[in-house]
Amino acid sequence: MIPRYSRPEMVAIWSPETKFRIWFEIEAHATTALANLGVVPREAAETVWEKGSTATFDVERIDAIEREVKHDVIAFLTHLAEIVGPEARFVHQGMTSSDVLDTTFNVQLARATDILLRDMDELLAAIRRRAFEHKMTPTIGRSHGIHAEPTTFGLKLAQAYAEFERCKLRLIEAQREISTCAISGAVGTFANIDPSVEEYVAEQMGLQVEPVSTQVIPRDRHAMYFATLGVIASSIERLATEVRHLQRSEVLEAEEYFSAGQKGSSAMPHKRNPVLTENLTGLARMVRAYALPAMENVALWHERDISHSSVERMIGPDATVTLDFALARLTGVIDKLVVYPENMQKNLDRLGGLVHSQRVLLALTQKGASREDAYRLVQRNAMPVWRGEGEFLTLLKNDPDVTKYLSPEDIEACFDLGYHFKHVDTIFTRVFGSATA
Amino acid sequence: MIPRYSRPEMVAIWSPETKFRIWFEIEAHATTALANLGVVPREAAETVWEKGSTATFDVERIDAIEREVKHDVIAFLTHLAEIVGPEARFVHQGMTSSDVLDTTFNVQLARATDILLRDMDELLAAIRRRAFEHKMTPTIGRSHGIHAEPTTFGLKLAQAYAEFERCKLRLIEAQREISTCAISGAVGTFANIDPSVEEYVAEQMGLQVEPVSTQVIPRDRHAMYFATLGVIASSIERLATEVRHLQRSEVLEAEEYFSAGQKGSSAMPHKRNPVLTENLTGLARMVRAYALPAMENVALWHERDISHSSVERMIGPDATVTLDFALARLTGVIDKLVVYPENMQKNLDRLGGLVHSQRVLLALTQKGASREDAYRLVQRNAMPVWRGEGEFLTLLKNDPDVTKYLSPEDIEACFDLGYHFKHVDTIFTRVFGSATA
Amino acid sequence: MIPRYSRPEMVAIWSPETKFRIWFEIEAHATTALANLGVVPREAAETVWEKGSTATFDVERIDAIEREVKHDVIAFLTHLAEIVGPEARFVHQGMTSSDVLDTTFNVQLARATDILLRDMDELLAAIRRRAFEHKMTPTIGRSHGIHAEPTTFGLKLAQAYAEFERCKLRLIEAQREISTCAISGAVGTFANIDPSVEEYVAEQMGLQVEPVSTQVIPRDRHAMYFATLGVIASSIERLATEVRHLQRSEVLEAEEYFSAGQKGSSAMPHKRNPVLTENLTGLARMVRAYALPAMENVALWHERDISHSSVERMIGPDATVTLDFALARLTGVIDKLVVYPENMQKNLDRLGGLVHSQRVLLALTQKGASREDAYRLVQRNAMPVWRGEGEFLTLLKNDPDVTKYLSPEDIEACFDLGYHFKHVDTIFTRVFGSATA
Amino acid sequence: MIPRYSRPEMVAIWSPETKFRIWFEIEAHATTALANLGVVPREAAETVWEKGSTATFDVERIDAIEREVKHDVIAFLTHLAEIVGPEARFVHQGMTSSDVLDTTFNVQLARATDILLRDMDELLAAIRRRAFEHKMTPTIGRSHGIHAEPTTFGLKLAQAYAEFERCKLRLIEAQREISTCAISGAVGTFANIDPSVEEYVAEQMGLQVEPVSTQVIPRDRHAMYFATLGVIASSIERLATEVRHLQRSEVLEAEEYFSAGQKGSSAMPHKRNPVLTENLTGLARMVRAYALPAMENVALWHERDISHSSVERMIGPDATVTLDFALARLTGVIDKLVVYPENMQKNLDRLGGLVHSQRVLLALTQKGASREDAYRLVQRNAMPVWRGEGEFLTLLKNDPDVTKYLSPEDIEACFDLGYHFKHVDTIFTRVFGSATA
Repeated sequence: MIPRYSRPEMVAIWSPETKFRIWFEIEAHATTALANLGVVPREAAETVWEKGSTATFDVERIDAIEREVKHDVIAFLTHLAEIVGPEARFVHQGMTSSDVLDTTFNVQLARATDILLRDMDELLAAIRRRAFEHKMTPTIGRSHGIHAEPTTFGLKLAQAYAEFERCKLRLIEAQREISTCAISGAVGTFANIDPSVEEYVAEQMGLQVEPVSTQVIPRDRHAMYFATLGVIASSIERLATEVRHLQRSEVLEAEEYFSAGQKGSSAMPHKRNPVLTENLTGLARMVRAYALPAMENVALWHERDISHSSVERMIGPDATVTLDFALARLTGVIDKLVVYPENMQKNLDRLGGLVHSQRVLLALTQKGASREDAYRLVQRNAMPVWRGEGEFLTLLKNDPDVTKYLSPEDIEACFDLGYHFKHVDTIFTRVFGSATA
Repeated sequence: MIPRYSRPEMVAIWSPETKFRIWFEIEAHATTALANLGVVPREAAETVWEKGSTATFDVERIDAIEREVKHDVIAFLTHLAEIVGPEARFVHQGMTSSDVLDTTFNVQLARATDILLRDMDELLAAIRRRAFEHKMTPTIGRSHGIHAEPTTFGLKLAQAYAEFERCKLRLIEAQREISTCAISGAVGTFANIDPSVEEYVAEQMGLQVEPVSTQVIPRDRHAMYFATLGVIASSIERLATEVRHLQRSEVLEAEEYFSAGQKGSSAMPHKRNPVLTENLTGLARMVRAYALPAMENVALWHERDISHSSVERMIGPDATVTLDFALARLTGVIDKLVVYPENMQKNLDRLGGLVHSQRVLLALTQKGASREDAYRLVQRNAMPVWRGEGEFLTLLKNDPDVTKYLSPEDIEACFDLGYHFKHVDTIFTRVFGSATA
Repeated sequence: MIPRYSRPEMVAIWSPETKFRIWFEIEAHATTALANLGVVPREAAETVWEKGSTATFDVERIDAIEREVKHDVIAFLTHLAEIVGPEARFVHQGMTSSDVLDTTFNVQLARATDILLRDMDELLAAIRRRAFEHKMTPTIGRSHGIHAEPTTFGLKLAQAYAEFERCKLRLIEAQREISTCAISGAVGTFANIDPSVEEYVAEQMGLQVEPVSTQVIPRDRHAMYFATLGVIASSIERLATEVRHLQRSEVLEAEEYFSAGQKGSSAMPHKRNPVLTENLTGLARMVRAYALPAMENVALWHERDISHSSVERMIGPDATVTLDFALARLTGVIDKLVVYPENMQKNLDRLGGLVHSQRVLLALTQKGASREDAYRLVQRNAMPVWRGEGEFLTLLKNDPDVTKYLSPEDIEACFDLGYHFKHVDTIFTRVFGSATA
Repeated sequence: MIPRYSRPEMVAIWSPETKFRIWFEIEAHATTALANLGVVPREAAETVWEKGSTATFDVERIDAIEREVKHDVIAFLTHLAEIVGPEARFVHQGMTSSDVLDTTFNVQLARATDILLRDMDELLAAIRRRAFEHKMTPTIGRSHGIHAEPTTFGLKLAQAYAEFERCKLRLIEAQREISTCAISGAVGTFANIDPSVEEYVAEQMGLQVEPVSTQVIPRDRHAMYFATLGVIASSIERLATEVRHLQRSEVLEAEEYFSAGQKGSSAMPHKRNPVLTENLTGLARMVRAYALPAMENVALWHERDISHSSVERMIGPDATVTLDFALARLTGVIDKLVVYPENMQKNLDRLGGLVHSQRVLLALTQKGASREDAYRLVQRNAMPVWRGEGEFLTLLKNDPDVTKYLSPEDIEACFDLGYHFKHVDTIFTRVFGSATA
C-alpha cells in the first residue's frame, strides 16, 4: 500500500484512529455484557461508554506507553483508564488481547469488503453499460492471438460482466468467512468470561460468533479471504490484458481515454500507451502474491502463535487498499474506453474471408464430404489466403473438389457475418437477465 | 503426483481411458442433441452410442494419430471414426475442441471433488470420534509455545473439526464453481451449434451451463478451485503441525501410531518419529503452490490462448491426487493417534501452578486492586516460579500485598482445574450440534 | 512431470535404478574410506565393490522390503546384504540415512543441471545464429505494445541471448550451491564416523564437502537452486511471449514452424497458432511455482525434520524435467522460427512516419526550441497522423512553427531509418564479443 | 513496509528526496558526457551541476506538475528547468524516461543492499560470538523433534553462521546482478545518444553498463534479486524457528531477552513469549512472497511495458525495508539470547541414555553382530526406556544377548558424552577458519 495506489476511504479503515475506535467499541460492548451478567457494576459500563464515546484516543500517547510495556492492548487499556478513570478496571475482564485484536481485524476486513463490494457494483455497472452499447458491434474473435471467428465487442464485455459477477459472489462469501467475533479468553475456554459476552458483542458488531476459537480466530478464514482477493485480482488482470491487446498499434480497436494535458512519453510525443491497464496488471501480481503468506499463516502453533500478526499488519491494508484502487481504476478504464468499431471491422476483413472457414467446413460435411476430406479441402484453399495470395471466396469457387459439394450460392451463404450473431441475445439474457438494456 | 503419494481411485480419474470415455460421452450426447434438433440423422446418433459405448478406446492408437496430426481431439475423432464408421462424420458438428476438453476437465475435477468430499467426511468422522473420546482430557493450552491455561484435548480436536467442516463447505462451493459445461463453438457465439445442445449435454453430464464462454470456460473458476485446495492444504498443515508438536520428546502428549515392524531410524533404533505428519506438512506446501499457476492462468489472451493447458495437465492430477492422499493419511493419523493423558497431566503440572495466574489476577481486581497493581503482584510472584524457585500457590499466600485482597481460601479457589472446563459442553454443542457423542 | 513434457535422459536421472546406483556408490566409497582408516576390513570394501558394481538392484524387491520396514535406506541395505553377503554389515557404519539420501539428491540435481546447461548452450547457439541472420533486419520497437522507434530483429535476439547467458551463469552458480556431500552421522557431529570419510566420498562423487550439516544438508542451498530455475523459467516466458506477440494475426512478423501434417484447429482449418510458445508460458508458471515450497523447506525443525522430503520427491523431477523440456522446445522454436522481414517493414511503415517523432523533437531543441515547445510542436503534428489524417513528414513541412527551426532538408534527414542502426555493431560486440558471426 | 517494521536509514533510500537526487545525478552526469562529446555546450552542463547540486527539489511541486502532465520524469524535468533555467533544455537529450528510472531503481537497490550487507555482517558477528561462547555447551540434537544424539549449542550456531555466510555471498551476487546502468534511448538502440554517455554515467554512479537494454533494463536481474531476498528470509525463518522451539515451556533451553517493563500477556502475567522470532517468521513469509511478482515481471511485452513499475514501487521498499528490519531484529535476538545450559543438560538426560543407542548398535556390529541383530537388540532394550520403564544402561547390561558381544565396560564406554564432541573443532575450523575465537 503506497499513496500512489490508495484511496482515502479504504486507507481510513486501517488508520490507528479507526482501530482504536473499534477496540473501544468491543471493550465497551463486552463491559456492558458483563454488567448485564452482574459481573461488573452497571455504572462502570455506563461510565466507559460515556467517557469513551466522546473521547479522542491519543495515538501518540498510546504508542509511547507501548514503547514502555511492549504490548499494544495493554497500552490502549492504560490510555483508556486515563480517559475513563477508576471504572476502567472493569474493562477487559476475563478477556485476552486477541479477543480484541482478532475481532477488530475481522471488523476492518468486513468494512473493507463493503467498499470492495461497492467498487464491484460500479465496475459491473460500467461493463454492463458498455456491453449493451456494443452488443452488436462486430469484432474478430481471437484464439491464440490468431483470428478465429467473428464475435461482438458486447460479448467480450458480457463475459467480463459474468466473470466479475462471480467475483462479487466470491467476495460476499469471503466477507462472510471473516465476519466472526471471538471473546473466549486466554485459550478459548471461556474460563474467565461467559460465552454470552461473545454473543452480545458479536451481535452489536454485526458479526457471527466464532464457534470455537483458541485465543485466536482460526486463520483458515483469512487464508480463504485473501485467496479470494487474489482470484479477483486475476480477473482484473484478464480484462486489463484484453484492453492492452486492443490498444496495440497494429490492432487499435480500443484505447484508454487520453486526457488533454497528458504526455505519453518524454521521448516520443505521438504515443498513447495503455498505462492504466499495464499498471493494473502489475497491481494484480501484488494482490495475488499476498494470498500466499495468508495461507502460510494458517498453521499456527498449538492454540496460537503470533507469526500471523506481522503478515496481517501488512497484507490487511496492502491487499484491500490495492484491490480497491485497482477496481476503481478498471471501472474508469472501461467507463471511458475509446472504442473504434471501424478498426474492428477493418481487422475483421484482414484475413480475406478466412474467418468463415469453419462454416465452409461444416457445409461440406453436411453435403456429404467426410470430415477428413472437408478439412483438407478447406485447408488447401485457406493457406494461399494466409500467405496473401488470393481471396478465400474466389479460391473456393474455383476449386472443383469444393464445387462438387457446394454451389457458388452455397459458398457465398457461408460468408454472412450476421450468421455469427444470431445467439447474442441468448447470451445477453443469460448474463444480464435480459437482452435489452 | 507420484505413486508414493497417490491412491488408485483418484489416479484413475486422470487416466487417458477415463478421459477418452468422458470425451466420448460429451460427443455422443451432443450428437443426440443435434439429432433431436434434426441437424444430424437420428440413426447416426444411435450408431455412435451403440458402437462407442461398448468400444475400448485404444490409447496407443490415439497417441500415434496425435503424433501425426499434432492435435489430440482430432486424433480421438479419427479413432472414433475407425470404431463407429461413416456415421462418425456427424460427431463434433459445429463444436470446437475446447468444448470437449474444457467440459471434460470440469467433469474430472467434479468427480475428483466427490472423492475429496468423501475423504473429508472420513476425516471429520475420525476427528469427531477422538474429540468426544477426549472431550474432558485435561491438557495445557499453549500460546507462543508457552504454557497458557488449561484446555482439553477434545477442544483441540473440536477446533480441528470446525476448521475441516469449513473446508468441506468450501470444497462443495469449489465444486459448484467448476461444474459447468460449454458447447459454444469456436469463439463462444454458438454460430455453428444451437445453445440447446449445450443445455442438453450439461444436463446429461450433471453440470450447469456456462453462461458465456469464449471457446474456453473462463479460468477464474479454476483459479478459485485450486486456491480452495490450497487453503484446505493449509488446514491439513495446521493439524499435522499440532501432532508434530505433541510428539516432541519433551512434550510427548501424543504419538503417531507405530507399527510392529517399523524402523524409525537406521542409526537410532529407539526413535519414533512423526514422519506422517511431517510428510503432510510437505504435501501441504505442494498443494498450496499449485494455486499460483492456476491464478496466472486466468488472464488468457482475447477469447483464449492455450497456456493454461500445460498447467492444468499437471496440477489437475497433482493437486487432487496429492490432496486425496493427504486427507486419507491425516485421517489415519487421527484415527490411530496414540494419546497419553498422563503426560498431558504431567505437563500441566510443570509450571508450578502458573497456569492459574490469570484467575488470580482477576480475583485481585474483583477484590478492588487496580488492574496495574494486580498485574504487578501476579508477575512478581510468577517470576520466581518460572525460574524454578518456588510454588506459585505458596508464594502468593506469603505475599502480604496479595493477602491484603485475598484470603488463603480465595487463592486456593483460583487453582481449581475444573473451573476451566465449565463451557466445554457449550463449545461442543456449537461445533457438533450436541455435547454428547 | 508428465510424459507429454518430458525427455528420457532427464527422466532417467530420477529413476529408482539411478537412485539406487548412486546410493550404492556413496555407500561403497564410504566403506572404502572406512577401510582406509582401518575401521572395516579392506576385503569387505572390495567385496562390496565387486558384487555391487555388477549387480542389478531389484527395485521391486527393495520396495517390498520397504513396505515391511517402512524405511527406504534400510530396505536398500537389506537388499544389498542379499547381494553382497555378510560383508554387507560393514556398509553404512556410523552413517545415517540422510548421509546417503541428501548426497544422492545433490548428485541427481548436479547431473540434471549438466543436462540443463547443455540445453542452455543449444538455446544460446540457436539464438545467436538467428540474431546474426537478422542483425540488420529492420523492425519496429514497441513499448506498451505501441510503436516506438525502429530496432532490428537481431537486436531483439541479442537481448534474449544476453538474458539467457545470464541464466546460464546463474545455473552454474545454482549447481555449485547444491554440489555438496554430507557424511556426518546422526546429527552432523561425526560422532561415529571420521570427517575424512566425507572428504573421500565428496571427492569421488565430484562434490564439495558440506562444512556443517545437521543430519541434513541445509535446504537454503536447494531453495536457491529452485528459485534460480524459477527465474530461468521466467526468461523462457519472456521470449515465448515475444514470439506469441509476433505471430498475432495483425502483426505476423514471425511464426512458429508449422509442419506439413499439423492441424491448427479442429474447427478452423486456416489457423496457425503459436501453441508451442503458449505451452512454454504455461510450463514457466509451473517451474516458477516450484520455487515456493523449496523456500518453505528451509526452516526445518532443529537438526532436521522430513517435511522437505515429499516436496523434493515431487519438485526434484518436476522442475528439472519440465525445464529441460521447455529449454529444448524453445530452442526448436527459435531454430525454426519463420521470420517475415517484409511484414516487419510493413508494420514499420504503418504509422506514417511517427516513429521518427523523437528525432524531430531533438532536432527542434538542437535548433533552439525549448523542450516544452518542441514537444508541443511534435505532438500537434503527430496526433492527426495517429488518427490517420495525414503523413507526419508532410504535416511537419507545412507547420510554420516547425519550419521556423528546421528546413525541409533538416526534417527529411530525421526520417532516415539507418540512423537508428548505427550502434547495432556496438551492441552485438558487447553481447557476442564481436559484431560478426 | 510499515513504520512498525522499518528502520530510518533504509526508508530514506526510498524517499522521493533520495529518488529525485539520484535522478538529478544521472541527468547531470549524462549532460556532462554529452558536453564531452560536444553535443551540448559545456557551460550548460556546468550550470546544471551548479544550480542542481545545491538545490532542494520540491517534492510537492513535482507532484503537482505530474498531476497535470501525468508523467513523472517530465514533471521532474519541468521542475529542474525552474531551478536551472534555459540551460535545462540540454538535459535528458536523446534519453528516455526509463534510462533515468531504471538506473535509479538499480542505484536504490544497490544502496539498499549495502545496508543489508552491513546487517548481515552484524548478524554474522553476533552468531559467531555466541557460537564460540557455547562451542562446547552440550545439548541434545533433535531430528523430527525427537531426541537423537548429543551435539553442542555452538554447533547449532555454527550451522546458522555457515548458512548466513552463504546468504551474504548470494546477496553480493544479487547486488552485482542489479548494479547496471542503461542510457540507451527509446528502444535501446542508442539512436539519439552515444553509447559513451552510458559508459560515463555508469562509471560515475558505480555501476556496470547494461550490455543490451530495450528501453528497460531486463527484469530477470530483478527477479533474481528478489528471489535471493526470499531465500535469505527463509534462512531467517529457520533460525527464528529454532529459537521458538528452544523457548517452548517444555524445552526452555533458551529465551529471547525479556526487558524489565515488558508484559508478555495482558491476561497471563507469568508469560515470556518468543514474540520476536514469531514476528520474524511472519516477516519471512512477506519477503518470500515478494519474489513472485518479481518473477512475473520478467516477461514484459516486446521492448517494454510498464506493468513491472507498480510492482517495484511496492516491493522495492517493502522487501528491502522488511529484510533490513528482520536482519537487525534477528541480530538482537541472537546477541541477547538467554541460554540455559543447565536445562540443555536436563533435557539431554531425559531419555535415560537412549541418545547413546547408535553407539551401542555400532559397538555390537564391530564385535561381530549382524546389523539386523544389533538393531533388534538395541531396539528391544530401547523401547522400555522410551516407555519410562527403566534405564538404558542397566537394561543393556542385563540382556544376555547383548553381553554375549559387549562387556559391562564396553557398554559403559558407549555412554561417554565427550565422544560426540571430538570433531567440534574440525567443524568450527571449517566454518570460522579456526577453532578458537
